[in-house]
Amino acid sequence: MHELQERIRKEGKVLPGNIIKVDGFLNHRVDTQLMEHIAEEFQKYFDTSDITMVLTAEASGIALATVCAQKFGVPMVFAKKAKSDNIEGGLYQSEIFSYTYKKKMTLIVSKEWLGPEDKVLIIDDFMAKGNAMQGLIDLVNEAGATLKGIGVAVEKGFQGGGDRFRSIPGVPYKALAVIEEATPGHIVFREED
Amino acid sequence: MHELQERIRKEGKVLPGNIIKVDGFLNHRVDTQLMEHIAEEFQKYFDTSDITMVLTAEASGIALATVCAQKFGVPMVFAKKAKSDNIEGGLYQSEIFSYTYKKKMTLIVSKEWLGPEDKVLIIDDFMAKGNAMQGLIDLVNEAGATLKGIGVAVEKGFQGGGDRFRSIPGVPYKALAVIEEATPGHIVFREED
Repeated sequence: MHELQERIRKEGKVLPGNIIKVDGFLNHRVDTQLMEHIAEEFQKYFDTSDITMVLTAEASGIALATVCAQKFGVPMVFAKKAKSDNIEGGLYQSEIFSYTYKKKMTLIVSKEWLGPEDKVLIIDDFMAKGNAMQGLIDLVNEAGATLKGIGVAVEKGFQGGGDRFRSIPGVPYKALAVIEEATPGHIVFREED
Repeated sequence: MHELQERIRKEGKVLPGNIIKVDGFLNHRVDTQLMEHIAEEFQKYFDTSDITMVLTAEASGIALATVCAQKFGVPMVFAKKAKSDNIEGGLYQSEIFSYTYKKKMTLIVSKEWLGPEDKVLIIDDFMAKGNAMQGLIDLVNEAGATLKGIGVAVEKGFQGGGDRFRSIPGVPYKALAVIEEATPGHIVFREED
């Protein structure tokens, strides 16, 4: 997606340790108009006519997932990290390792809001090694729900996280900006599929 | 706001310890259409013509704040909880006590995305004792920014958290559903101002 790639090129910052910061428009300050354009772009790749929900992980995925869910006319559900006392009763859980926080975390979704009848489109803003994404997929499988697609705004392609998701049979995967190489002042994107 | 109050009455659950769960439409599964109606309602109470951003706290405030920011044509910034390694350089910080997690947390906003020139509308989905809200106001003050208004979807009025914000000179405050009394099967709202 050209607009997104240009924003990353112009405003993204590459920090030591292959960290790519896009927090001026994606995951700290959020450009809501860009989110709308991203949602429109996802509509080209996914059949959103029969999904029942958009699923994401807190916290930074929520903004984009909300705008997508709004455009597709379905609710947005976000998996919570760790256990808070306000979630009662049955939960689906999956363990993930967060590189952001450098520790194990548990993604949880209430069984009230995800079930076998759901057709789920997973949306996340950013993917590095794909741990959080795998956790979301595990939650969908645990619930016996149907995974209808996986959409990611920015993928760090050079960390290989996306490749395992590209090969899930029957589940379309789309990342709108796949970064192949990132050094300060120099960001290379994978050619569009 | 009638629609919101009806949703709370029909779908909200009152748990021991005065916990009111609205996670079927507000803060776990999010009804994006309701978020739009809430954003429209806020527009009646706040002059959104010269705000530069909507500020909220992660995680559950993000969905509503995003839809509001989108409607008002400004970016949404969310204060992060605790320190992650991905935030470099200058930060505004405020200490809060989270009753959800039963521990002290730090709200942080990068100085890159909040500054003296900003005119800020704070939006949050839910307020009990108002600790997170006070933390957000502290961040705005620390930055030397101008606070243009405070909007809350659901306020637990019987915990008194909102009252201190109603008395800030020159800063309009609006909660769209103020719960005065909550026992299982029985929720009483404060009359509209």
